[in-house]
Amino acid sequence: MADLDPEEFRRLGRAVVDWVAAYRAGVGDRPVRAGVEPGWVRARLDTGLPERPQPFEVLLGELDRVVVPATTHWQSPGFFGYFPANASLHSVLGDLLSGGLGVQGMLWSTSPAATEVEQVLLDGLADALGLDPGFRFDGGGGGCIQDSASSAALVALLAALHRASGGRWRADGVDGRERVYVTAETHSSLAKAVRVAGLGDRALRVVAPSPGSQAMSADALATLLAEDVAAGLVPVLVCPTVGTTGTGAVDPVRAVALAARPHGVWVHVDAAWAGVAALCPEHRDLLDGVELVDSFCTDAHKWLLTAFDASLLWVRDARALPDALSITPEYLRDGASDSGAVVDYRDWQVPLGRRFRALKLWSVLHGHGLDGLRAHLRGHVALAAELESRIVAEPGFTLAAPRSLSLVCFRLDAGDDATRALLDRVNASGRALLTHTVVEGRYVIRVAIGAVATRREHVDSLWALLRTSEP
Amino acid sequence: MADLDPEEFRRLGRAVVDWVAAYRAGVGDRPVRAGVEPGWVRARLDTGLPERPQPFEVLLGELDRVVVPATTHWQSPGFFGYFPANASLHSVLGDLLSGGLGVQGMLWSTSPAATEVEQVLLDGLADALGLDPGFRFDGGGGGCIQDSASSAALVALLAALHRASGGRWRADGVDGRERVYVTAETHSSLAKAVRVAGLGDRALRVVAPSPGSQAMSADALATLLAEDVAAGLVPVLVCPTVGTTGTGAVDPVRAVALAARPHGVWVHVDAAWAGVAALCPEHRDLLDGVELVDSFCTDAHKWLLTAFDASLLWVRDARALPDALSITPEYLRDGASDSGAVVDYRDWQVPLGRRFRALKLWSVLHGHGLDGLRAHLRGHVALAAELESRIVAEPGFTLAAPRSLSLVCFRLDAGDDATRALLDRVNASGRALLTHTVVEGRYVIRVAIGAVATRREHVDSLWALLRTSEP
Repeated sequence: MADLDPEEFRRLGRAVVDWVAAYRAGVGDRPVRAGVEPGWVRARLDTGLPERPQPFEVLLGELDRVVVPATTHWQSPGFFGYFPANASLHSVLGDLLSGGLGVQGMLWSTSPAATEVEQVLLDGLADALGLDPGFRFDGGGGGCIQDSASSAALVALLAALHRASGGRWRADGVDGRERVYVTAETHSSLAKAVRVAGLGDRALRVVAPSPGSQAMSADALATLLAEDVAAGLVPVLVCPTVGTTGTGAVDPVRAVALAARPHGVWVHVDAAWAGVAALCPEHRDLLDGVELVDSFCTDAHKWLLTAFDASLLWVRDARALPDALSITPEYLRDGASDSGAVVDYRDWQVPLGRRFRALKLWSVLHGHGLDGLRAHLRGHVALAAELESRIVAEPGFTLAAPRSLSLVCFRLDAGDDATRALLDRVNASGRALLTHTVVEGRYVIRVAIGAVATRREHVDSLWALLRTSEP
Repeated sequence: MADLDPEEFRRLGRAVVDWVAAYRAGVGDRPVRAGVEPGWVRARLDTGLPERPQPFEVLLGELDRVVVPATTHWQSPGFFGYFPANASLHSVLGDLLSGGLGVQGMLWSTSPAATEVEQVLLDGLADALGLDPGFRFDGGGGGCIQDSASSAALVALLAALHRASGGRWRADGVDGRERVYVTAETHSSLAKAVRVAGLGDRALRVVAPSPGSQAMSADALATLLAEDVAAGLVPVLVCPTVGTTGTGAVDPVRAVALAARPHGVWVHVDAAWAGVAALCPEHRDLLDGVELVDSFCTDAHKWLLTAFDASLLWVRDARALPDALSITPEYLRDGASDSGAVVDYRDWQVPLGRRFRALKLWSVLHGHGLDGLRAHLRGHVALAAELESRIVAEPGFTLAAPRSLSLVCFRLDAGDDATRALLDRVNASGRALLTHTVVEGRYVIRVAIGAVATRREHVDSLWALLRTSEP
């Protein structure tokens, strides 16, 4: 029954801190992408669990021997794949505090600070992003931390189903007539939410883009909604995206919300990656129309310096999620909950338990300040703008979509095979990691600038690599 | 764009380690339950976010000033509420390593080590628990870490819906005929999963207990299944519980599985709290019949020394979850995934992203060894057995259910009001925290022994408090 005593924890804690410091100091020198074959790690690990306690230093040795060589280094300054997964050291320290406290904040009463700190931070961030005051708790709405934008979309959909059914959904479930509206560029998490919610993939309506763009056509949406209603179907949720995963396209939130309004459809804005940019006044236009929607999600764990998992979800109606999701068995009954004076975040999410994730977010906001966060975002946007200029000026390279914030998408004029070969060569070099998408049928390289450590020199190196790669 | 440099991180990391060490060393001296009113924390925090970076020491000061006084101390040795939420310092160190690495393991290729370490540990734990080899990856099944038993139950239900529909569920959704079988004592997460999946609360069938017990009657289940099938309904999933939340009752897994088998119903065993006890051979009987079921869940974050979140889910068919849940847009396409040679854990869960949670579990298994884990579990079981003896011998006290491992439930003969008053007095003392349930209509106090730091002296103190509390 012996856990580490405080002195031993101090000693080992320092060793781990040193290990992390050394890892981060050297991560830029490692090949970004893990270069191992499937099974490489399994083959090198002792597959039997130890009967006797082992010295902690042995575990650190295993990390060096097996884990680090088989890790794709998301914190490398050369990581330009997918979207960034910022895990700033400030957030790591905040998360360590959360682990140390070890509280489980399912109910307000099971740790009042865990709930109220989260409420305060989400209210403050709503203001800092320029969200309508109606998303604050004192405005009738409120925010919470979800594990991911996937889960945020799911709970928004569940609240929408409850509302659209006039409250019958809880007891009766779905009836097969519900429909959800997205575009071909909407994140796959929406399709997953639709499936999880029991609607089946057939419930997903793919709205056409506006001509010449990848953004949802509000006119096409209006037409589809009217057709579906006329056919006896029930439009439940529309998801405009602010910053699609493929190319960073921005759906016209205001026009979409206005098209949805006559039918009472829930509008959920997925701004998982791009939404945090609204901290900068010059990008506040990204949120035009968000004051008209029902829920808004952006991830602190992509580009806002906060280690996964910390997806921020705001709703206009603080009762919407609890009304849909609450179930209270006797062992969770509680005086504070019964009083109605508190928020029980368990009713805002699928899992019952929850960590004190607000601490890592707090540590980031506190340690960087809003000014520091804006500088972080602006630095990457400026680097992306420079890269965009270089691509436009470079013979044989073509921008595949307008640059969106810090995301640049391009292809080679020589064709898809050449573009794919270029991506493979860059990734094989170990000096940078890129991922791809397909735009209008063409294979396209995405450069998502945004790792915590990425500076001008790293984007310069990437550009040199892109221009000089040879087959 | 400036994150902490390595030297600054070393300095602050040590300060945080010291803070955590001091918190843990003193947590037993604090009132276990936060004694604050709703709004206490909000009223004391600066609600505006800082524009400029603030010194980290200021944040630590805020923790001391506002957070700790408003925290219910789950890591206190006097915490006997709900179920324990073990956050051993070993697991805290493992989690710190995870934050330091900052990888996002949605796909095998996005960090091979994150996936393969998890596979190796889950295979090893399957053996250590005595699970059938069919739950190992090399036996055609496999395990994964979910955030919670709630999410584990949800994905099991989704896989069950997919299977029961003959594969039509993905496209067509649910049709309203699906039914899910639980007891009145099954955890509320099953009801939540049923609701989330779009079945509606009406899809939940509550199977009667065996006479004189709180455990599911397999005969009643068989009857209900036959009736429902005859009525054209579709039994999808039955959930026997090993260690119910209320009293730790154990449903007869083998008999339940045999009753379910003729109808092809998915059997999901929820052993969230009690399952880990199977590490001890003397408690292996808890898993009798589990070799017949489709999925099995137990939480490392309750009683197995691993900080939330780390719920362990095993399935007999490694394709079951991906077949139900996978959706692959272009930007997630990947050579390793296409090869079929790897596990992409994103397809085993609702969220897309995932942390390297296996590191905290590894740190626990490594630092305690299986022997140490067994000693941890056995110590609490022995303390609970002593407490049970004392309650049985004490005039005016009555056991409300047979002791289950380290969970003891009792009431006062003087009636519900007296029992409730006793619980309130103990909790108000600050020296222990207890929660309640209702058994056969009577208000019952639960004593869940299992905090990492709980020793004989703490249970002795609790007993003294229970015997001497005066109105």
